Amino acid sequence: MPRRTEILRLPMAAPDDVSALAAALEAGRLAPEAVVAVFAKTEGNGCVNDFTRPFAVHALRALFAPHLSEAALARIALVMSGGTEGGLSPHWLVVSVAEAAGPGPALAVGQARTPVLAAEDLGRRAQVRMVAAGVRAAMTEAGLAPDEVHYVQVKCPLLTSERIGAALARGAVPATRDTLKSMGLSRGASALGAALALGEVGEEAIPDAVAEAPSGLFARRCGASAGVELLDHEIVVMGMSPDWTGPLVIDHAVMADAIDVPPVAACLARLGLAGPGGFVDEAGRARLAAVLAKAEASSDGLIRGRRHTMLTDSDISSTRHARGFVAGALAGLTGMTDLFVSGGAEHQGPDGGGPVAVIARREG
Amino acid sequence: MPRRTEILRLPMAAPDDVSALAAALEAGRLAPEAVVAVFAKTEGNGCVNDFTRPFAVHALRALFAPHLSEAALARIALVMSGGTEGGLSPHWLVVSVAEAAGPGPALAVGQARTPVLAAEDLGRRAQVRMVAAGVRAAMTEAGLAPDEVHYVQVKCPLLTSERIGAALARGAVPATRDTLKSMGLSRGASALGAALALGEVGEEAIPDAVAEAPSGLFARRCGASAGVELLDHEIVVMGMSPDWTGPLVIDHAVMADAIDVPPVAACLARLGLAGPGGFVDEAGRARLAAVLAKAEASSDGLIRGRRHTMLTDSDISSTRHARGFVAGALAGLTGMTDLFVSGGAEHQGPDGGGPVAVIARREG
Amino acid sequence: MPRRTEILRLPMAAPDDVSALAAALEAGRLAPEAVVAVFAKTEGNGCVNDFTRPFAVHALRALFAPHLSEAALARIALVMSGGTEGGLSPHWLVVSVAEAAGPGPALAVGQARTPVLAAEDLGRRAQVRMVAAGVRAAMTEAGLAPDEVHYVQVKCPLLTSERIGAALARGAVPATRDTLKSMGLSRGASALGAALALGEVGEEAIPDAVAEAPSGLFARRCGASAGVELLDHEIVVMGMSPDWTGPLVIDHAVMADAIDVPPVAACLARLGLAGPGGFVDEAGRARLAAVLAKAEASSDGLIRGRRHTMLTDSDISSTRHARGFVAGALAGLTGMTDLFVSGGAEHQGPDGGGPVAVIARREG
Amino acid sequence: MPRRTEILRLPMAAPDDVSALAAALEAGRLAPEAVVAVFAKTEGNGCVNDFTRPFAVHALRALFAPHLSEAALARIALVMSGGTEGGLSPHWLVVSVAEAAGPGPALAVGQARTPVLAAEDLGRRAQVRMVAAGVRAAMTEAGLAPDEVHYVQVKCPLLTSERIGAALARGAVPATRDTLKSMGLSRGASALGAALALGEVGEEAIPDAVAEAPSGLFARRCGASAGVELLDHEIVVMGMSPDWTGPLVIDHAVMADAIDVPPVAACLARLGLAGPGGFVDEAGRARLAAVLAKAEASSDGLIRGRRHTMLTDSDISSTRHARGFVAGALAGLTGMTDLFVSGGAEHQGPDGGGPVAVIARREG
Repeated sequence: MPRRTEILRLPMAAPDDVSALAAALEAGRLAPEAVVAVFAKTEGNGCVNDFTRPFAVHALRALFAPHLSEAALARIALVMSGGTEGGLSPHWLVVSVAEAAGPGPALAVGQARTPVLAAEDLGRRAQVRMVAAGVRAAMTEAGLAPDEVHYVQVKCPLLTSERIGAALARGAVPATRDTLKSMGLSRGASALGAALALGEVGEEAIPDAVAEAPSGLFARRCGASAGVELLDHEIVVMGMSPDWTGPLVIDHAVMADAIDVPPVAACLARLGLAGPGGFVDEAGRARLAAVLAKAEASSDGLIRGRRHTMLTDSDISSTRHARGFVAGALAGLTGMTDLFVSGGAEHQGPDGGGPVAVIARREG
Repeated sequence: MPRRTEILRLPMAAPDDVSALAAALEAGRLAPEAVVAVFAKTEGNGCVNDFTRPFAVHALRALFAPHLSEAALARIALVMSGGTEGGLSPHWLVVSVAEAAGPGPALAVGQARTPVLAAEDLGRRAQVRMVAAGVRAAMTEAGLAPDEVHYVQVKCPLLTSERIGAALARGAVPATRDTLKSMGLSRGASALGAALALGEVGEEAIPDAVAEAPSGLFARRCGASAGVELLDHEIVVMGMSPDWTGPLVIDHAVMADAIDVPPVAACLARLGLAGPGGFVDEAGRARLAAVLAKAEASSDGLIRGRRHTMLTDSDISSTRHARGFVAGALAGLTGMTDLFVSGGAEHQGPDGGGPVAVIARREG
Repeated sequence: MPRRTEILRLPMAAPDDVSALAAALEAGRLAPEAVVAVFAKTEGNGCVNDFTRPFAVHALRALFAPHLSEAALARIALVMSGGTEGGLSPHWLVVSVAEAAGPGPALAVGQARTPVLAAEDLGRRAQVRMVAAGVRAAMTEAGLAPDEVHYVQVKCPLLTSERIGAALARGAVPATRDTLKSMGLSRGASALGAALALGEVGEEAIPDAVAEAPSGLFARRCGASAGVELLDHEIVVMGMSPDWTGPLVIDHAVMADAIDVPPVAACLARLGLAGPGGFVDEAGRARLAAVLAKAEASSDGLIRGRRHTMLTDSDISSTRHARGFVAGALAGLTGMTDLFVSGGAEHQGPDGGGPVAVIARREG
Repeated sequence: MPRRTEILRLPMAAPDDVSALAAALEAGRLAPEAVVAVFAKTEGNGCVNDFTRPFAVHALRALFAPHLSEAALARIALVMSGGTEGGLSPHWLVVSVAEAAGPGPALAVGQARTPVLAAEDLGRRAQVRMVAAGVRAAMTEAGLAPDEVHYVQVKCPLLTSERIGAALARGAVPATRDTLKSMGLSRGASALGAALALGEVGEEAIPDAVAEAPSGLFARRCGASAGVELLDHEIVVMGMSPDWTGPLVIDHAVMADAIDVPPVAACLARLGLAGPGGFVDEAGRARLAAVLAKAEASSDGLIRGRRHTMLTDSDISSTRHARGFVAGALAGLTGMTDLFVSGGAEHQGPDGGGPVAVIARREG
């Protein structure tokens, strides 16, 4: 029997505000046992000490606990991404899968978790391989071939002072002692893991130390997000499958730099969402289910030859700058602000650019 | 004899980097005595303790001092605007005016300075009137009628702890004792002053305390920017005049909210700058001389009904959030990052939106 | 039968880390039904969007829920104070009260909650009166007379964009629309409420708008802390009572400015905690149960005639500056960093200074 | 003929405010040709994009330019240190040296500049050696033996995105591509250079990559400060010499951690500055000429076994946290806030601690 995906995009008044999900449960619009993943943009700084992510996880667990067994609850991928800079709006994306009769193709979703990552493996080839195995498991679960995949979302761990200290105490050497930097290494290794599983890069091209991987080595269909609330990886794979049914479709684009909006406009047009002047209008927005994108500051300090200051601003993390800025570019195009724009696009798209996935409902 | 405006848009490697201007002087592309205004986006926080603005002013003065008398130098409007969040690129806009034969209409520029503003007048009707008089003087200088004006740029003062203390010491009561808040009041009063001079609002509608002016009361063609480096106002008026000549033209748009890009796209199209899909392409960018815009967080905490977090983020000023976000929207459209996006759009366009001016070279 | 207070000071590895409390429960060192208050310094920014406070509350509730009825749990005062700038260490202070035979005097603790505060009453005399009534109720509960009180801790609400909007929607006018500013008004009104109840100020001296109260009007024995996680006030009163018993004693000092350490040294000496050179040594620290203090930036921008920059730094809130700085002064004296230093001392001690309470175990 | 040092400690209303120096020049209290060094605490963030340092340098140069030849001006060490967190007060320390008859010993001051440091040498042994040579030259100039030295101040360069890019473009590999991290590497290499010159560490103990040097390897009498405004090193050595005369004396202490105030109290007592309870009183403060100290967050995330959050706070740089906190500890002891507390104490004192130098006028 074919499977069918449903996505609810719901507002969040605070990191622990699950009232919109509770209302959907109450109204029967959401079946707890069908939920496979919950994404959220929470309003912390998206960096090391962003506790809005685990706070949201606590609230979600408390919401679902009365409905699901411990094991069933643990199977839901909880992908919290901190940082709603600029006009970004904190929101939930609740992804459900159920069996349903009907024609394909349609959005297919698979997911997987990896084992716990040792602190000293973070940012090294061991992490790349662990994530690649996880992405393959998720593709298998969804019945997706590599070229049918449009987006892989990986939630990956980071290093805290405590985790670094514990590793050192047992004689292990982490790839970095800088907690903020560990986030970037973890995201980069995760992206290379996805690229490996998708056949976008070969394993021989990936050095043991991800910090030494050239920026030209990247995944075109992966967003990775690091958080203090997990020690393993949560992986969600999304693609178009003839064996799935339902109203949702997915497509993707790659931005070459932080202001490279035309490929996203073309993607929206392919999905029939382009209104007058190319902008998404009311009717289009009603059909837009989700936009997922990655943002980062280009490492050479330039955008199209003009200097940016994201990397030299010691008051605001470059990830916060990049998120708000790219969010502006995408919000201007789509006319909506509840976009899942996540910061830190190391090896996710070209240096300074990043991948964008768009999920929409079919017309009519 | 008609006058003609020229604008150079030049990069800035640091707040005191005037090397691009020096090179233009050296090459004869810039005549010191023709300079009427220098705008700059500098890379500070754009808030109270942003010393990149006065630092840039020091460097400009040192550059021009060998070429101009003290009095001539003092006549140049130096409009430093701090804050290059997201991908914004620090840059100079050097505006020169000279007599030249030729047909009109073309971009006309006038400027004026007001008397020093007493600390207790900041944010009150006295400031509104002072700015209105200054705008009228600048229009007169340019020979522009109110309906020919497309943009008024006002650089206005703010209150520091010292200025507040000095006012209190002599028995005067400033409108606020909050230094950051004083920037918003000063910008708001300046905008209402411009609106008054342009006939957009009537004096009777403006309350004595600008803090109490309804947000529906706003200027459609004014950007105001506050800085610690001046105690008076520097006003530059720009419009289209049949009595001016040269290659430059100006038009403007009003964004209804922070993501309302279509009116700007329409403005670009009117100027013949819209490429494929409505985006400005290489050829268009070659003709784009300057984009000036204002950005702010909507005061109700919402964009199109979705919550934003700019006003409740105690780590980053809402002006910084708004600048980076709106800059993203405009950079996505224009494909360039050296945009003069300035934060704090109190009474400059509708609440949460703001005015945008585009200056371009004629085709061919 | 006399009552006896016990205080546990326990470390916190993250805002939701209650493992040290869980271990104390397990080991029988903590009886859930005896807990009357839990204070915590959590590691957020201590400002509007500090979700580490409600996150800690969630974790505490989950810890106690299996042991206490809903009503019993609701009676525990949960006083989360965000902000561990500088070397401050996140920690819990768990206050328990039980009946016990023995001689007095000793530390007595009483507590109370007020009704929910309407948004438009925040920062106004209605809030002052509400808090005064709460402080009186807490004193009555503890059997403390005003002159026996050494410290009143008030946790008070703040305004969010949502609360402000809701008030305006029903025609009510909040004292401010600035969310960060609402924290200061709420703290100031709470302190004046405590001062009123303690007889330190007379009701006639307090204006309706707390913003207009002179800074010379202040409580000498009150610390107030604002948080997004409550809508009413949680009040804890501490003093020395002949009717209480046990090892704990309390004393207090008032710092005249942010570096006025000698009165605190004198307080420590009175409690027998001064070691060589006046500093608390190992033996003294073993007897130190808790230090509670308030910190703020002086409103005239000066400390002993020298300019400080806390009020003009738009990158870091002055409350964060002040907390880390005063914490340094007190940590240098006491040799410990798990101090309950809370920011924003409006009407709590003189302008720029603040009250300090020290709780210690008796010698021997 | 013996030499004699004089130090003026003067307030600064803004980074370019040299009015107090101008007044001293005017009044004849300051002879331009006698000035050998100017230290300043300026009010920026003390990190990469702190332009208050070069702004102050611009203002100083403009002040002295009419009085000194270009060469004489270039010989003055300009040691700007950004960051006045907490209650720290922006100020100037102007150090003058002149020949004068009289008995010794007294404060002796020597200074030197190094060649320009190549970007790829920063944080490597080449920088250590370059600084060691500079310190030796400064000692020679002052006639100080290593064991007579109490403090070495080094102002060292940092890497910007531009400098990193330029190095990479010519095939050189900088020790880091992280601009903020380059500041710490530069400070650490500078401190090890001073330690080498002072005989505190042996050259064989210093690895090529300073990042790999154990934290137990440190200078006990050196403070280093990195800034964007120079490409070489400015070195000032201070000590007690029998060949110098005048009222000033110097002593130093080493703090073992961020709250280890007793060694500083002992140093103040040795200088006769300890008033009642060990605190410096009015009379002592009148004799205190300068306090120079370094502050940093301990790398294990702990102070005396208690967790601090300076390294995991992604909103505020740990250098800013540490400066404000240690400043509080020292201001509590000395009762003054115009202290030269500089952040980032890599290899300057033990991990998490730092050196402190106190300069005082003799009694009577």
